[in-house]
Amino acid sequence: MVDLTHLMENEVFMAFASYTTIILSKMMLMSTVTAFYRMTRKVFANPEDCASFGKGESLKQYLRTDDRVERVRRAHLNDLENIVPFLGIGLLYSLSEPDLSTALLHFRLFVGARIYHTIAYLTPLPQPNRALGFFVGYGVTFSMAYSLLKNKLYL
Amino acid sequence: MVDLTHLMENEVFMAFASYTTIILSKMMLMSTVTAFYRMTRKVFANPEDCASFGKGESLKQYLRTDDRVERVRRAHLNDLENIVPFLGIGLLYSLSEPDLSTALLHFRLFVGARIYHTIAYLTPLPQPNRALGFFVGYGVTFSMAYSLLKNKLYL
Amino acid sequence: MVDLTHLMENEVFMAFASYTTIILSKMMLMSTVTAFYRMTRKVFANPEDCASFGKGESLKQYLRTDDRVERVRRAHLNDLENIVPFLGIGLLYSLSEPDLSTALLHFRLFVGARIYHTIAYLTPLPQPNRALGFFVGYGVTFSMAYSLLKNKLYL
Repeated sequence: MVDLTHLMENEVFMAFASYTTIILSKMMLMSTVTAFYRMTRKVFANPEDCASFGKGESLKQYLRTDDRVERVRRAHLNDLENIVPFLGIGLLYSLSEPDLSTALLHFRLFVGARIYHTIAYLTPLPQPNRALGFFVGYGVTFSMAYSLLKNKLYL
Repeated sequence: MVDLTHLMENEVFMAFASYTTIILSKMMLMSTVTAFYRMTRKVFANPEDCASFGKGESLKQYLRTDDRVERVRRAHLNDLENIVPFLGIGLLYSLSEPDLSTALLHFRLFVGARIYHTIAYLTPLPQPNRALGFFVGYGVTFSMAYSLLKNKLYL
Repeated sequence: MVDLTHLMENEVFMAFASYTTIILSKMMLMSTVTAFYRMTRKVFANPEDCASFGKGESLKQYLRTDDRVERVRRAHLNDLENIVPFLGIGLLYSLSEPDLSTALLHFRLFVGARIYHTIAYLTPLPQPNRALGFFVGYGVTFSMAYSLLKNKLYL
């Protein structure tokens, strides 16, 4: 049996695992932020979620959209759209024997940029703060994709 | 060449592969459920999807939103938001040599909780059924993330 | 230390890495298409994104939804819903020692179908063009899931 510890002894792979776990955990926290605003602002998407507040007509006032909740949901969706490519391309990139310091630079920039993106989205900070966070993360993923396709293309 | 069969002979990894395939297949079925409700309720998002029902003004009655369809779409998006972190964190966790019985407990709880979440969302069951499904899956993923960062942190 | 180059010397795995990188990069381009239509049509979701166009009441005209932008966003979400299962199931399938030519057929069909889906969605082409792209990609993913569960089931 292949000793899987060995994969986790590879420094690039361990770094990828750590940074990915951190950024996916951050993404999961967006669900909690959404739930927090839904509770405190009494804004729900499903009738069963606010059943304890009333019945019939009085329920409808809770089934609406709210700027704050929609903002968190947009930030969450943007995370999904950008972290999924990082997860796939980053995993394959980590297995393609990149230079450790180059790989660390990619992972750190991505994680930093996405955390900055979330802060800029939720505060909200004036543009181009959010755009900056977005494009740094975007560029990092494309840089890994380019490196992967240049070295390992097999179609 | 590394004999990849060996990775698939690792029991934790085989279990991860099986449970992940099951839960991703379940998630894909949400598309079919959405399509089913769109067809039977004649509710579409794109003019070209209902072009056979009429032309011009008469088309507009089919381009609307429907409670049932939106409910399935919310369940699908919630799946994406929770299964993506499970996919990433669970893969890395499986490669970090966890105890087999602990790993199986995590995978089984997650898959069971997400299936229960879908049933609770689509029926719909009264709260806190759906919340229970959500938080069990959420907790399992964070538990794997914690175990990973505790043992293999490399920043 | 396990020599990771060896994993990347496995032809199935290299092919998976190449096709996945291509389709994830295509998915990321959807963000650029959305941004392009938001800019050229002056349609924004956040007040801070159009702050340079005016203040107060005059801002509200830019905070609306637009058919074209919503169409790109639906195509992007559909990509996410279908590429995430391909990423997870395809990775595990690639590690399960499939026949090279069978694996290549799966990857090529999936990538071709999803690119066709995007073209059919954004043009838009009349149905069933988009449905065809969708179902080919969907079938390929289920075919890999079936092959995986048949050979490597461990629950």
